Amino acid sequence: MRIGVFDSGAGGLSVVKSLLEHQLFDEIIYYGDTARVPYGTKDKNTIIRYSLEALEFFNNFDIDLLITACNTVSAYALNEMREASHYDVIGVIEPGIRAVENKIDDKDARLLITGTRATIASQRYQKELKDIGYTNITALQTGLFVPIVEESIFDGSLLDEAMQHYFKDISAPNAVILGCTHFPLISDSIKRYFDDKPIMIHSGEAIVEYLQERYSLTSTNKPSNLKIYASDNVDGLRSIASNWLSE
Amino acid sequence: MRIGVFDSGAGGLSVVKSLLEHQLFDEIIYYGDTARVPYGTKDKNTIIRYSLEALEFFNNFDIDLLITACNTVSAYALNEMREASHYDVIGVIEPGIRAVENKIDDKDARLLITGTRATIASQRYQKELKDIGYTNITALQTGLFVPIVEESIFDGSLLDEAMQHYFKDISAPNAVILGCTHFPLISDSIKRYFDDKPIMIHSGEAIVEYLQERYSLTSTNKPSNLKIYASDNVDGLRSIASNWLSE
Repeated sequence: MRIGVFDSGAGGLSVVKSLLEHQLFDEIIYYGDTARVPYGTKDKNTIIRYSLEALEFFNNFDIDLLITACNTVSAYALNEMREASHYDVIGVIEPGIRAVENKIDDKDARLLITGTRATIASQRYQKELKDIGYTNITALQTGLFVPIVEESIFDGSLLDEAMQHYFKDISAPNAVILGCTHFPLISDSIKRYFDDKPIMIHSGEAIVEYLQERYSLTSTNKPSNLKIYASDNVDGLRSIASNWLSE
Repeated sequence: MRIGVFDSGAGGLSVVKSLLEHQLFDEIIYYGDTARVPYGTKDKNTIIRYSLEALEFFNNFDIDLLITACNTVSAYALNEMREASHYDVIGVIEPGIRAVENKIDDKDARLLITGTRATIASQRYQKELKDIGYTNITALQTGLFVPIVEESIFDGSLLDEAMQHYFKDISAPNAVILGCTHFPLISDSIKRYFDDKPIMIHSGEAIVEYLQERYSLTSTNKPSNLKIYASDNVDGLRSIASNWLSE
């Protein structure tokens, strides 16, 4: 099975890392729109337009399934992308919601959603979690984490100050939804900030579980062939890929 | 006289602020390419392509002069923009270099250039300062300052940590070149970090002096008419404009 993974930039490689670990696919075609990253600060119509243009890239490959690793794209452009393509398109929000449901039984548990400005403003996570009965939801745009992770800063005093900036009025939640593909890289630091209390919900792991459940996918028992493409700054993406995927 | 000011996003409003204070023009048309900001993390060819596309926007207005407020555009696309337009195009790097020359007599003074990844990698400031005899030049990409300023953080512990991250091995320079339009907003904090020692070189002030010297411009003695356009997130730009320009 050959799949595409689309992201606004490099962040989606954190989802690819999970896919590689589970060897679910023969081939993974990754496309990062690094020429226009980040999407998370942009308007809905712009995000939809850019996402539909990304489908044109995947026309060059005969893919069976497309995963949009970017939460912002998943929040705004999924329906439009589905209508415009003949293969299935899966976002990261629904798998994230399913992961919360699987892991958090108490509907009054304190849930903290983190994400870009656009993802949080879309209200997608908030609405879907409320719809299935969760009552105690806080959503915070934590956009600065994106460039911090892109500087390869995963812990330390600068990140501590950024967490303090966003979280200073928040008491430790029971679960943190890492609503941006960059955030799994700082998952341990966020968990530590909250005294190791919260369960961390990671899009990459969530999507693997989702694919196993819904698509009955199992391991191919051999490494997936990975091809990485970018609309700009290919060297930067390559360096992040070797850093994050360490292969 | 009607001029255009082009920037990759909102940062160029710091240059507009200086232009407004000196009332050099009857009308200022500002265009921020907020749909594709930031440029400073992107490749040369992409920066040139986006900059040439911005010229198409200014075709809608009969401007006499175009200022590219963005250091990254000034570093990479100025010649191409000049060739493609019938009016004069001024960047911010040459005015910045002239400002250093006017303010720093000692050619062995310690100069610190700050900017985005792309501006620093272009070597434009470094090369031109060396060409006129400066010997003691340090250049640092300080890209995180951009999203920090865009979060309206101009001082405090998060910015202190970011400065510590970039400047920890640097002794106080005699002058700091604020090689990105966002950085004038944190000029006071940077100066304070270095014990108030350095002279700060600000693109907006530098370009006013440059226009006064080279174009013999004087005050019109009435407020300039300012029109602001953006390719995306107009509300965000409007909010930054009212915040920065306070009018």
